[in-house]
Amino acid sequence: MSNATTDYSDLKALYINGSIKKDKTKSHTQVLMNKSAKIMKSQGVDVEHIYLLDHAIAYGMIKDGKEDGQADDWPMIQQKIMAADILVIGSPIWLGVKSSVATLLIERMYAYSGDRNDKGQYLYYGKTGGCIITGNEDGIKHCAMDILYALQHIGYMVPPQADCGWIGEAGSGASYGDTEWDGKKIDPPTGFDNDFTNRNTTFMAWNLMHTARMLKDNGGIPEVGNTTEGWQNVANAKSDNP
Amino acid sequence: MSNATTDYSDLKALYINGSIKKDKTKSHTQVLMNKSAKIMKSQGVDVEHIYLLDHAIAYGMIKDGKEDGQADDWPMIQQKIMAADILVIGSPIWLGVKSSVATLLIERMYAYSGDRNDKGQYLYYGKTGGCIITGNEDGIKHCAMDILYALQHIGYMVPPQADCGWIGEAGSGASYGDTEWDGKKIDPPTGFDNDFTNRNTTFMAWNLMHTARMLKDNGGIPEVGNTTEGWQNVANAKSDNP
Amino acid sequence: MSNATTDYSDLKALYINGSIKKDKTKSHTQVLMNKSAKIMKSQGVDVEHIYLLDHAIAYGMIKDGKEDGQADDWPMIQQKIMAADILVIGSPIWLGVKSSVATLLIERMYAYSGDRNDKGQYLYYGKTGGCIITGNEDGIKHCAMDILYALQHIGYMVPPQADCGWIGEAGSGASYGDTEWDGKKIDPPTGFDNDFTNRNTTFMAWNLMHTARMLKDNGGIPEVGNTTEGWQNVANAKSDNP
Amino acid sequence: MSNATTDYSDLKALYINGSIKKDKTKSHTQVLMNKSAKIMKSQGVDVEHIYLLDHAIAYGMIKDGKEDGQADDWPMIQQKIMAADILVIGSPIWLGVKSSVATLLIERMYAYSGDRNDKGQYLYYGKTGGCIITGNEDGIKHCAMDILYALQHIGYMVPPQADCGWIGEAGSGASYGDTEWDGKKIDPPTGFDNDFTNRNTTFMAWNLMHTARMLKDNGGIPEVGNTTEGWQNVANAKSDNP
Repeated sequence: MSNATTDYSDLKALYINGSIKKDKTKSHTQVLMNKSAKIMKSQGVDVEHIYLLDHAIAYGMIKDGKEDGQADDWPMIQQKIMAADILVIGSPIWLGVKSSVATLLIERMYAYSGDRNDKGQYLYYGKTGGCIITGNEDGIKHCAMDILYALQHIGYMVPPQADCGWIGEAGSGASYGDTEWDGKKIDPPTGFDNDFTNRNTTFMAWNLMHTARMLKDNGGIPEVGNTTEGWQNVANAKSDNP
Repeated sequence: MSNATTDYSDLKALYINGSIKKDKTKSHTQVLMNKSAKIMKSQGVDVEHIYLLDHAIAYGMIKDGKEDGQADDWPMIQQKIMAADILVIGSPIWLGVKSSVATLLIERMYAYSGDRNDKGQYLYYGKTGGCIITGNEDGIKHCAMDILYALQHIGYMVPPQADCGWIGEAGSGASYGDTEWDGKKIDPPTGFDNDFTNRNTTFMAWNLMHTARMLKDNGGIPEVGNTTEGWQNVANAKSDNP
Repeated sequence: MSNATTDYSDLKALYINGSIKKDKTKSHTQVLMNKSAKIMKSQGVDVEHIYLLDHAIAYGMIKDGKEDGQADDWPMIQQKIMAADILVIGSPIWLGVKSSVATLLIERMYAYSGDRNDKGQYLYYGKTGGCIITGNEDGIKHCAMDILYALQHIGYMVPPQADCGWIGEAGSGASYGDTEWDGKKIDPPTGFDNDFTNRNTTFMAWNLMHTARMLKDNGGIPEVGNTTEGWQNVANAKSDNP
Repeated sequence: MSNATTDYSDLKALYINGSIKKDKTKSHTQVLMNKSAKIMKSQGVDVEHIYLLDHAIAYGMIKDGKEDGQADDWPMIQQKIMAADILVIGSPIWLGVKSSVATLLIERMYAYSGDRNDKGQYLYYGKTGGCIITGNEDGIKHCAMDILYALQHIGYMVPPQADCGWIGEAGSGASYGDTEWDGKKIDPPTGFDNDFTNRNTTFMAWNLMHTARMLKDNGGIPEVGNTTEGWQNVANAKSDNP
């Protein structure tokens, strides 16, 4: 098996980090996101990163907080989301759940869910997404089920094994990518030699590329049975004779 | 918009109901599952239903309970799962979570996760799945995130809006499909005129068919970067120079 | 049965609303929180409300964002939390989960979890808490399990039925307390005549008062086996002969 | 600080293990449950263990499966639950969630939720409970939030830090209590020297004893505002003038 002969260079991927740390250089989740992004870049995918706390993001089920006088960089971010074929959301784990910032990110995306794509489907149809979770407490799967659920519910296709992450043994300790903990040097950095994490991170990156390729080549998802306007005109759950 | 001109008649769908009721005629979830199945049948999909409690299913992270002397119909069900392109899991809601029977179903599928398909990928790669949830208490989304997470984690592709369901207003009351409650006739049956449920049920059925079609035409998911044997030979998260 | 003869007038309760709406007069969750608070006030409990979005709250696992130059009203809120015997967290439901604002609230409380009370126990020992959830989509129980888990994990006692809420039938529709929907008047306001919601709201308010009373009369929870300093000096899970 | 001078010898605790392994000697969760039980026994608490898969338990929202011809040991178990002041539920983690067997256990307890105690409160009022979770994948907190939510919702008081558990670093590996893994001896057994797990296990055991003591001395929870019959006669959420 060799690297794919498929061309992925027309694909765009957006990685958004929902870390709660003001200083992005301290985000452990970013370290794993970078590994994932590197795989995509190696295949020619156009990758962009957003660290959400670098921006002022208003709260609310709103499209643009500036309309009622709030600072709000969201509309610019929404444009990038719409331009991307692949979305990867990163989140740390606190008390077993995804972060406030990752939650805010999903709320703001959801606020556009009344919009339609050019086929009349929900806005995010035709895109694919996944998530990357790290923490030193447990909760990768719980955070992932929450994020992946939201993504598919608003229109994303979720490929197999679309989540990856790293946590340590129960209790406090070094976090992903740490090179020092409790006064001791760690080499390789924490988690870098974890083949479970490395493998899942690899699977996810490739499955997102495969799925984006398939969707793009297919012109998205056929607009039959899945549009607000049209679902009652085909076989449906409401009437026996559409 | 008319019905699809696409041919779905080579697809197989399996609906498995994880109701906890011994008598399957009393399952409200089955009523909504039947509506979903009817849409697929109308497009030529070969649909089969399994009511899990009609069968003896052993507990455990095991492939066949008969090997240690337990009654176990699972291996026959596993064969049907492997033969199906589409899997739809039904579950009632109790205390806000999916049922014990639906949990058992997922555990038994998971027990095969060490197996590989003919491309060397996890066994369930190339298939797509969704879920149908009903209750008179709340929890559709919570049950769905749990089930859909499990499906994608073991290899299923999860299309947009792969969950549907019905619940009533907070508190006890009539359940989906009931024609009588508290001594009063209900016509149409409870939930049948809920356009949110009808629409989501329709979207899900069609998106599962679209995704199964796309996967089948594509020969499944390309086996690059997502096999136990091969992931270290392509761009990956472990080494910088594979 | 009559009103309690017990005196609750030495108790303080704090209600914090994690709504994502800038304008607090539009929060449906607040309407149900007010009903709950009214029960406590009728028994002499000193009740205070905080609408979190009225304040600037910094992100991070930090005690005071002002230390690194951010606007941050949290330290004042933390003081009120510490002064209260009872904490009630309100949250709306978006995509089946609690809000970003409620998540932020819990993160900031968690940032103090290294502190100890005057017995050497985790800071929040001796207090009791619950939650109030509304939405027009489903998810009361899922949001409640998330919030109540966090509360007990950081030291709160969680009484029976410490959650209450209201949701409507699956799909969009009027929200709790609405007096108009889709051009029609609603009287009584949406959900006000829901006896399930009324009963659970009542049970919760009283159980929080009973539990706070019991804890206060008992001087909190005895400091045996539950302090960082002392747990290895009593019967414990580490050594057979402490 | 020394061992408590409080007398706990009139308390009963029931530990129920929801492992999915037929052979209970192979349950890793049982090893940690035994450590917890040992703490309670050292203080004179009368402790009993049930390994649920040692028994035939029928599915359904039913009190006794024998009534419709099924083998069912549940009624005997329900009697033990009712006789116990403290309930501790153990569960392994599979795909990030609690087991099918633990789910079945909670469903069967829930089936009695229409019954009342001798004060007219829900049946389980006056009792306290917690949970113990192990796995080699992550999910302690997610399983715990699910189980503890169910317990408080049906009437249990949940003390601070009522959950404990052990998991290893992300990926497969030795499980709690293993003395050998991948051909190598492990001494002390896996997880035994994890102070996070040891501490939380200790905190939980003591907090359950403290809470059970407090509830028993208090005659349970006062029956004001929390009974089906009486809640409308005191300050409540339904009427302004009860």
